[in-house]
Amino acid sequence: MIHHSVGRPPIRLRLENGVEVTAAGAVPVATIVVRDRRTLLSLILDPEVGFGEAYSDGRITVEGNLINTLEAVYQSMSGLEYMNWYARIISRFMGYVQRNSLRGARNNIHRHYDLNNDFFRLWLDPLLVYSCAYFPSAATSLDEAQVAKMDYVCRKLNLQPGERVVDIGSGWGALALHMAKHYGVTVRGFSVSHEQVRWARRRAKEMDLNGRVEFIEDDYRNISGKCDALVSVGMLEHVGPEHYVEMGRVIHRSLDHAGRGLLQSMGRNRPRPFSNWTRKRIFPGAYAPTLRQVMDIFEPWELCILDVENLRPHYAKTLEHWLERFEDSAGEVSTMFGPEFVRTWRLYLAGATAGFRVGTLQLFQIVFARTACQQIPPTRAHLFYVEERPEEWEGSKGDEAPLTHVGLAEG
Amino acid sequence: MIHHSVGRPPIRLRLENGVEVTAAGAVPVATIVVRDRRTLLSLILDPEVGFGEAYSDGRITVEGNLINTLEAVYQSMSGLEYMNWYARIISRFMGYVQRNSLRGARNNIHRHYDLNNDFFRLWLDPLLVYSCAYFPSAATSLDEAQVAKMDYVCRKLNLQPGERVVDIGSGWGALALHMAKHYGVTVRGFSVSHEQVRWARRRAKEMDLNGRVEFIEDDYRNISGKCDALVSVGMLEHVGPEHYVEMGRVIHRSLDHAGRGLLQSMGRNRPRPFSNWTRKRIFPGAYAPTLRQVMDIFEPWELCILDVENLRPHYAKTLEHWLERFEDSAGEVSTMFGPEFVRTWRLYLAGATAGFRVGTLQLFQIVFARTACQQIPPTRAHLFYVEERPEEWEGSKGDEAPLTHVGLAEG
Repeated sequence: MIHHSVGRPPIRLRLENGVEVTAAGAVPVATIVVRDRRTLLSLILDPEVGFGEAYSDGRITVEGNLINTLEAVYQSMSGLEYMNWYARIISRFMGYVQRNSLRGARNNIHRHYDLNNDFFRLWLDPLLVYSCAYFPSAATSLDEAQVAKMDYVCRKLNLQPGERVVDIGSGWGALALHMAKHYGVTVRGFSVSHEQVRWARRRAKEMDLNGRVEFIEDDYRNISGKCDALVSVGMLEHVGPEHYVEMGRVIHRSLDHAGRGLLQSMGRNRPRPFSNWTRKRIFPGAYAPTLRQVMDIFEPWELCILDVENLRPHYAKTLEHWLERFEDSAGEVSTMFGPEFVRTWRLYLAGATAGFRVGTLQLFQIVFARTACQQIPPTRAHLFYVEERPEEWEGSKGDEAPLTHVGLAEG
Repeated sequence: MIHHSVGRPPIRLRLENGVEVTAAGAVPVATIVVRDRRTLLSLILDPEVGFGEAYSDGRITVEGNLINTLEAVYQSMSGLEYMNWYARIISRFMGYVQRNSLRGARNNIHRHYDLNNDFFRLWLDPLLVYSCAYFPSAATSLDEAQVAKMDYVCRKLNLQPGERVVDIGSGWGALALHMAKHYGVTVRGFSVSHEQVRWARRRAKEMDLNGRVEFIEDDYRNISGKCDALVSVGMLEHVGPEHYVEMGRVIHRSLDHAGRGLLQSMGRNRPRPFSNWTRKRIFPGAYAPTLRQVMDIFEPWELCILDVENLRPHYAKTLEHWLERFEDSAGEVSTMFGPEFVRTWRLYLAGATAGFRVGTLQLFQIVFARTACQQIPPTRAHLFYVEERPEEWEGSKGDEAPLTHVGLAEG
């Protein structure tokens, strides 16, 4: 029944009493071992929460590659209705409890991003860029790909020296600092994660950029003042679709009469919430929108969509790197937070990788602009032919990873 | 009152009795001369129809540059409600009369595209590509830019020899023939314009491509069979938003399990019909959608959006070329259809140019794919670094314009 409820994937299901279930004719990718009866019941009620909780507890183990296992399950589930009645009720309830009010959003962010900066340093790149990277070639390393992504964003926006940039969801500050250092702009970065802002401010000071980059611990809804360009990378996932109109109002209010911006976010091909498990254990209050839903931000203000790029394969690759590094540090993570936490985060990273591989998740990078904006060149050639770019601006001491010329194809 | 109703643009309005109106403080871009009282009334009821009809008749003349005049009016109207109650009623009524049923669509297309092939030859490029071109540099000619556009489309789709392509709205056949000739694919092109299909079939024969390119005089809703790639350039404008779900069904039905496609269409930043005049005199039944509306095509079938490019400045440039050529042939057009027709089409081409310049119109080129599609490279570098491409495939005698390497930046 459980096997059937997830669309009969090519996975062997082995129960505590030794009974095995496999889809007829399929060569199993892996074996999922279920160790007790309680777990069986929870798998029937809400397969994703049931599986997640039991995997974290050790009541379920996977013999075989975890990403491939989840890929096989997502594939086989793709034709099915996403949630049964029970999961839908829980989903609604969680949506309410985790709603992104000013207070709720701060709490939701706190639960993930304030875990511990040292923890994220174990498995992210050295600049702590916690969003989809950009791999110009298959051989690009994660560290290079994160710098490449930041530079790609700057070039898509065609940033000019002296311009004022707002970064909504500035994380540990890497993008804001990259912009100021290499493009000579001034940046105000907003985050509601106390730990992130603390870290980012220290980095700005170390890099002698604190005169041009300011990190502000506040909600995007409280942004005031104008900017020439607005950027938000990997933050829209925490806004919630019921706040997109509000977010659009903030963008409209902040963006100068000829401004432009870039929004990067996980997305979907059709509306679908994150699993109850993901929202319970990993990203409270999170949601990945379809392009149609994203238009709630732009349409009321007649903002032009200039460019949408789906970087889905790049996020699969980014996550593979993160998971590999995470596994290398599993011992240290376990010392920090215990073995259950290690399994929870392993499942999250593997599940996201599988989602981007299979295509239940997308990654949209969206360039938008006021109608009057003249800054974005009429072709994309400038993204790939880097003729001259200031490597460094006065007032910055560089200790970042070296710049690579991102767009230059090698394949 | 009339001047006020279009937002007080910097235009001088001169009436038959010599009275002049100008916005205070503004230097007028041009003078609009209104020659009788009837025209004044019609300008109040529905400014766009009133202006269009009177301009065609010669009851209104414009002293100054027509494009700049319309730009100024569109700019000044941008903050206003688009249509008054009278225009809205007419708009509804026209929407019904010109609805795109199988029969209605054929009639709507007939009224524009079946005018006379010789007429379109007077002012389009030699290959008769009647959609937005792609200008890799400011110096690119229209003829080059149309070839560049067709090649850009092929490269965005990453067409491979032997693949099956469906072209919805194949016009005079240039894109289908380009694909077959330079990318070795087989193409079925659909159009409901009898004149276009007749012309395209002759071209296929002349180019010895009739074994691999078939032009079918039929509605997109009657397409059967499978394809690896589906393309539709400048045809969605004639579908109507109430048929997008149906169009999506046709795409879903036609596209192979790992297929991909490209859709190019005029668009909007927010929903807004074409003016009553445009639908009455130029494009019956036409509509330019927002990106949100376009998603009606893709979302129900979980088609991934891989790439959206807004080519708005390219359409302004394309239209400038068309208008210039049109003016050069105005005498011949007048001999064909009379001086009123010349003024009607001059106003259409100038108005569209102004719309793309001002930003009331957008041009979206959208690449989409099945989730399982592996054909589209993970970066866009391949669009700009053309390493090797078969210039010609067996079974084709070339007499097209020479190929240019489109993406190679010159600016």
